[in-house]
Formats: sequence, C-alpha cells, structure tokens
Amino acid sequence: MTPRRTTKKRRSPCPVACTLDVLGDKWTLLVVRDLLLGKETFKEFSDSPEGIATNVLTERLDRLIEHGLVEQFPSTERAGRWHYRLTKKGRTLRPLLESVRDWGLANLPGTQEKLRARSD
Amino acid sequence: MTPRRTTKKRRSPCPVACTLDVLGDKWTLLVVRDLLLGKETFKEFSDSPEGIATNVLTERLDRLIEHGLVEQFPSTERAGRWHYRLTKKGRTLRPLLESVRDWGLANLPGTQEKLRARSD
Repeated sequence: MTPRRTTKKRRSPCPVACTLDVLGDKWTLLVVRDLLLGKETFKEFSDSPEGIATNVLTERLDRLIEHGLVEQFPSTERAGRWHYRLTKKGRTLRPLLESVRDWGLANLPGTQEKLRARSD
Repeated sequence: MTPRRTTKKRRSPCPVACTLDVLGDKWTLLVVRDLLLGKETFKEFSDSPEGIATNVLTERLDRLIEHGLVEQFPSTERAGRWHYRLTKKGRTLRPLLESVRDWGLANLPGTQEKLRARSD
C-alpha cells in the first residue's frame, strides 16, 4: 500500500499543522464555503466574486476529492455532467468555516455576511 | 491617508475571503499557535518542529504586526532584545485556532495534541 498524501507531506503530528497542509491556502476554504452554500458546478465556483482562476479551482477540487472531503455525482439535469458536493467528512468543516467567518466579521471592518449557508 | 493593506488587497467583502487574505497560508497560524502556547522569541518559533524558514518567519511576523495581531516588547531578561506577543486583537484568534486543531484531531489520523495552550 502506498502512503496517502495526507501522511506523506506531514510536517509534524500537530493537528494545526496537518490541517493547514490540507486547507492552508487562500482558495481551498472558499471552495468549501461555496459547497456549504449549495453551489455544485465548476461554473458556480468560478463565478464567485473572488475570481478564482480555473486552473487553481481544478487543482483545489482535485485535492479536496483526494482528501475525501468532496465527491462528484452525476447531474440530474444534464446527462453526462458531473457536479460536486461535500462528503460527510467534508461537511465536518462547517464549524471551522464558521470560526473563520466569525473572526472576519468581528475583526475586519467592512466584511459582510451576505450569504446564508444551506442547512443540511 | 494611504489605504491599509488589509483593505487594499481585498478580493470581496466576504469575511471568509478577507480572513484568508490575512491568515490563509501554511505558516501564519503556526506562528499564532506558538504565540498562544507562550513562545516569545524568534528562536523559539524557529525551533518549532515544522521547521519554518527564517525568511518566511520574518515575513509572517511582520505581516501579523502590520495587521495589529502581534506586537514586540522589550525582553526583561536581556537588554536590547525584543520579544513577540499577541495583541488583544491577536488573542481573539484562539477560537479559530481551536477549530482548526479540533478538525485535525477528529479527521486526520495520527495527529496529536501535544501541547497545551497557556491560559490568559
């Protein structure tokens, strides 16, 4: 069995360091945010106001899938199209996302909670 | 008055995006972790098991100071030396850090909470 990427690149056994190895960049949690908001398609993520580059979006979605946080499923509207959703494990990111959001709202002037997450 | 860096680089008014503009990388929250654990000196941060490069550490400390999250104060032990500590605003990062830690502990096998944060 080949070692999983999650353990291969580990910098230390610290849960903060290991979580940042998965999520510690400027884009990954924005994709998770969009998924929590109910967005499902590449175009929907791509159309978010932050303007993620398509190659970055592709790489981040692949990484989230590799870590078991996101999965693809066939579109019910258009045959042959695949959409994205959080796995059960991916949905456990909600409290972390809410902590990030709450810190921003409390400490970064001008930030606004415009969107409400779909409850699930 | 020149615009502050916090607003200058803003990608959207989303509190998640804006927080990631400040903290969204693999190193910044590890420095915050060390500060919450009571570490104060450049050498202490540098000696952490993840092995942050000194130029990256310098840049991250400068950025945290610029955002009002960290401040320097004179060492009581050695005259002329400056140490680092979280500001009041910086200490508000504790719940966010705890969310990151808790997610790692629950979802990333092999992670261990070795260190206990100094209460303050």
